Amino acid sequence: MTLYLNLAELLGSRIEQGLYRPGQRLPSVRALSVEHGVSLSTVQQAYRMLEDNGLVSPRPKSGYFVAEDRQLPALPAISRPAQRPVDISQWEQVLELVRSTPHPDVIQLGRGMPDIDSPTLKPLLRSLAQISRRMDMPGLYYDNIHGNVQLREQIARLMLDSGCRLGTADLVVTTGCHEALSCSIRAVCEPGDIVAVDSPSFHGAMQTLKGLGMKALEIPTDPITGISLEALELALEQWPIKLIQITPNCNNPLGYIMPEARKKALLTLAQRYDVAILEDDVYGDLAYTYPRPSTVKSFDDDGRVLLCSSFSKTLAPGLRVGWVAPGRYLERVLHMKYISTGCTACQPQLAIADFIAEGHYQPHLRRMRSQYQRARDQMSDWVTRYFPPGTRASRPQGGFMLWVELPESFDTLRLNRALLEQGVQIAVGSIFSASGKYRNCLRMNFAARPTPQIEAAVRKVGETAMRLLQAELHGG
Amino acid sequence: MTLYLNLAELLGSRIEQGLYRPGQRLPSVRALSVEHGVSLSTVQQAYRMLEDNGLVSPRPKSGYFVAEDRQLPALPAISRPAQRPVDISQWEQVLELVRSTPHPDVIQLGRGMPDIDSPTLKPLLRSLAQISRRMDMPGLYYDNIHGNVQLREQIARLMLDSGCRLGTADLVVTTGCHEALSCSIRAVCEPGDIVAVDSPSFHGAMQTLKGLGMKALEIPTDPITGISLEALELALEQWPIKLIQITPNCNNPLGYIMPEARKKALLTLAQRYDVAILEDDVYGDLAYTYPRPSTVKSFDDDGRVLLCSSFSKTLAPGLRVGWVAPGRYLERVLHMKYISTGCTACQPQLAIADFIAEGHYQPHLRRMRSQYQRARDQMSDWVTRYFPPGTRASRPQGGFMLWVELPESFDTLRLNRALLEQGVQIAVGSIFSASGKYRNCLRMNFAARPTPQIEAAVRKVGETAMRLLQAELHGG
Repeated sequence: MTLYLNLAELLGSRIEQGLYRPGQRLPSVRALSVEHGVSLSTVQQAYRMLEDNGLVSPRPKSGYFVAEDRQLPALPAISRPAQRPVDISQWEQVLELVRSTPHPDVIQLGRGMPDIDSPTLKPLLRSLAQISRRMDMPGLYYDNIHGNVQLREQIARLMLDSGCRLGTADLVVTTGCHEALSCSIRAVCEPGDIVAVDSPSFHGAMQTLKGLGMKALEIPTDPITGISLEALELALEQWPIKLIQITPNCNNPLGYIMPEARKKALLTLAQRYDVAILEDDVYGDLAYTYPRPSTVKSFDDDGRVLLCSSFSKTLAPGLRVGWVAPGRYLERVLHMKYISTGCTACQPQLAIADFIAEGHYQPHLRRMRSQYQRARDQMSDWVTRYFPPGTRASRPQGGFMLWVELPESFDTLRLNRALLEQGVQIAVGSIFSASGKYRNCLRMNFAARPTPQIEAAVRKVGETAMRLLQAELHGG
Repeated sequence: MTLYLNLAELLGSRIEQGLYRPGQRLPSVRALSVEHGVSLSTVQQAYRMLEDNGLVSPRPKSGYFVAEDRQLPALPAISRPAQRPVDISQWEQVLELVRSTPHPDVIQLGRGMPDIDSPTLKPLLRSLAQISRRMDMPGLYYDNIHGNVQLREQIARLMLDSGCRLGTADLVVTTGCHEALSCSIRAVCEPGDIVAVDSPSFHGAMQTLKGLGMKALEIPTDPITGISLEALELALEQWPIKLIQITPNCNNPLGYIMPEARKKALLTLAQRYDVAILEDDVYGDLAYTYPRPSTVKSFDDDGRVLLCSSFSKTLAPGLRVGWVAPGRYLERVLHMKYISTGCTACQPQLAIADFIAEGHYQPHLRRMRSQYQRARDQMSDWVTRYFPPGTRASRPQGGFMLWVELPESFDTLRLNRALLEQGVQIAVGSIFSASGKYRNCLRMNFAARPTPQIEAAVRKVGETAMRLLQAELHGG
C-alpha cells in the first residue's frame, strides 16, 4: 500500500471511531510527518484524500479540522417483527426485483450490485481473457467438488483478516453466496424446522428458507448493534430453533457491524442452546474501517458456525463465485453442493485466484471502501434534502446499501410502481421480512459513483414519496 | 454443412438403421452422384469418411460394401432392480468419483467428460476471451433470473431439432444440468415422495433424489428400448408416484435411444396417472444418427414434462451452462433456481450464445458424433479382446459411455481399488442404482480419441478383472 493511503486510512478510521470530534483541529502536517516518519508531501496527500472524502476540511493558515457533523436523518428504531415462527411470503415481489436486467433508461437503486467500473478490476478481466487462451484449457474441465484449490488457498489467506484460520480442506467453493446459503441451510435443517433470523434480513436468504420449507422466526434487531441477544435468548427458550441466520458485518440491509463482544455473546448463546449459526459475511470485506471486522466464525471452537461469503459484492456478481466454511457440517454441505450444481464454473474461479495472488485484491478493496463511504455520505445528504421530514435512515458502516424508513402508514409498493414509470427502481422493504413487515421501508444502492443522474433519481424517490404521503393525508 | 458430410451422415445412418446389411454391396459412386446431384469426388469423399469410421470397406474393382459385423460383446439383459421405493445410498462412492481432478498420471475412464480437444471448440474459447475484453463488461453483471436472452433464443432454435417448439420465456438457464435436475425435482416433489427412475440411472440424478429426501423406485430397463413401460404401469398402479425421471436419448449409462412410439406411450401413461416427467436430454444432441432423436417433451401437450439439458456434454462441463424447459412448473422452478444460485454465471452463457449464433455448434456436433461413434466401436473391440469371456456390454446409439457387465458375483469396487494403484479410474456400477445394485458392472468413457495409452488402460481394466475373477474362482 502506498504511504499516503496508509496514513489516510489510519486517520480516517480514527475520525470514524470518534477519537477526533467534529470541528476539532487535527495534528499538523509537520507533526504527522515526524510521528509516522513520512515526508510532508505524503501527509498532505493523505489530508487531501480525506478532504475529498468529506472527512476533514482545511482552514486557511490553521491546518486541517474534522468536518462538522452533517445533518443526518434519524436512525430507524429497533425492529419489532412478529414474535412467532412464520411461513415466508413475498416471493412475487422478489421475483419482480430479480427479473430486472440492466436497462439504459432505468436507474436501478434496488439491486445489490457493486460498482464494477473501477479500473482496479481491469486485471481481473485480463485474467479471464488469458485463461481462455491457455493451451491446457483449464476453464473447460469439471472442477473438483470442493472447488479450485488455488482459489481456496487465496480465500483461506483472505479470511485470516477476519480472524479465521482455515485450511483449503475446510472450504467449499460455491456458485455465488446464494448456493453457499442454500447448501448450508439444507445441511443443518429439515423442512418445517425453525430458523431465527435478524430482521430486516436479506431477501435472498429469506426466500431460500421459504423454498426449503423452513419457518422463519424474526428477531428484533438494532440498527447499530444488530440482532437483539435478549430477544434471541427468549426465542431460544421458547422455540425448538435449529439455526440462527445472521449477517453481523455490514449487515444487509441495515449496514451495522455487530460489536465484537456481542458476536462472542451470540456464539455462547448458540453453544448453550446447541444450535448452528449461519453467518453471511458477503459484505464483510467492505467495512469502511481497517482492519476489517472479525467474524463470529473466528471465535467458533466447536465447528457450529457455517461461514458463507462470495466475491459478488467485492468484485462482480456475474462471476458467481462464493464459498462456505461449513465447520462440522462439511460432508453434508458437499453432498448438497453436488446435487445443487455438481461443481462451480472453472474460469471465474481461476481468474479470481490469479487476481488475488497477483496482489490486486487489497488495492481494489481499498478503493471501493473509500468510494462507498463517500457515496454513503452523499446518499444520506440526499435523503436529508429530498425525503419527507421525519424520514429515518440507517448509517451503514460498510457495503453500499441504505435502509430508509418512511412514516408507519406508508406503502413502498405503491411508491415503487409510481417510480418505475419514471425510470427508477428501488427495493421495497417488505421483501426483507418473512411476514411482509417493513412496508414503509425501502433499500437504496449507493455503489455507483454519485452523478447528477443518480441525484435526480434519489430526488424522484423522495419527491414521489412526499406526493404520495400528501395524497394519503388528503384521503387520496 | 458440406456436401460430402451430408451424404456420409445419410449413408451412415442408413447402415446404422440396418437398411444395408453387413457385407452387402452399397450403391456405386456414379449412382449416388446422380441420385444426390453431387460430383463423383464428393461421393468418394463421403465413402472415404465412412471407411475411416469403419462402417464400409472398399473391395478393389467391386466398389464399397457394408463392413462385416465385428464380434461384439453380448448385450446386458433387461435390468431387475428392487421392486419397491428405497432410500438412496452410495454417496461415499459418488463422492470418491467427483472429488477426483484431472491428473497426468491417471487415465480417467470414470467421469462423464467429453473430449474438449477438438479444434471445432476454438471459436468458443475465442468468444470467452472477447467477452472479457468488451468495454461494457457484460460478464460481470447479475444475470436475469431466466438467464441470458440471446442464449435462450439459441437454445429454443436448437430444440426445434428435437421436435420442441419453445419460446425464450419457456426456458430457464441453469448452472449445468445438475441444477436443472434439482430445481425440477424440487418443483414437483416434497421430501418423502416416490420418484420412478430408469435403472441403471445417472448417479447425479440419484444423489439429487437422496439429498432432497425422495425415495427412488427403480424400474426394469431394457438396454435397447429403455424403461419397461409394462413394469412402469404396474408401479404406477401400486405406488403414489409423483415423478418419472428418465434419460430416453443416448441414455446414461446404457446408451440406448428409446423408440419414438415408446416415448409417446410413456407420455400417455404419465397422463393417465397424472404424474410429471423429468426428461434428461443431456446427451440427446450426441446421437450418432442424424437428425437427432425426438424428446418426450416434443409430444407433451399439457406441460407435464420438464426437459433438462446442458452444454456440458456437447461443449464443455467447466462452463456450467444448462437449461430446463419446465412446462407448467415454470414459476416453481424459477423460485428453486433463485434460491439455488441466484443466477448463472454470465460470461459462459454469452460465449455459448455467440458460438451457436456464428454457426459453430452444428459442425462441432457433427465432428464429435462421428468421433464418438468410431471410439465406441474401438472400445467395444477392446472389451471383446481384453475382458473376461462372458462379459456383456451396451451398444450405445449416442454419447460416449459404455456399460460393461461382468459375472454376477463380481465386485467392481474391488476392481476400482486395484485399478487406482495402476493409474486407471472407472465408474463403479453400484452408484447407478439407488439400492447398490450393479456391483458387477462398470461404466467407461470413450470420449477421448483412442490412443495406445487408452488402449493400455482398458486392457488393464480387463486383465485386472480377469485376475480378480480367477482369484475368486480359486477362493482368493
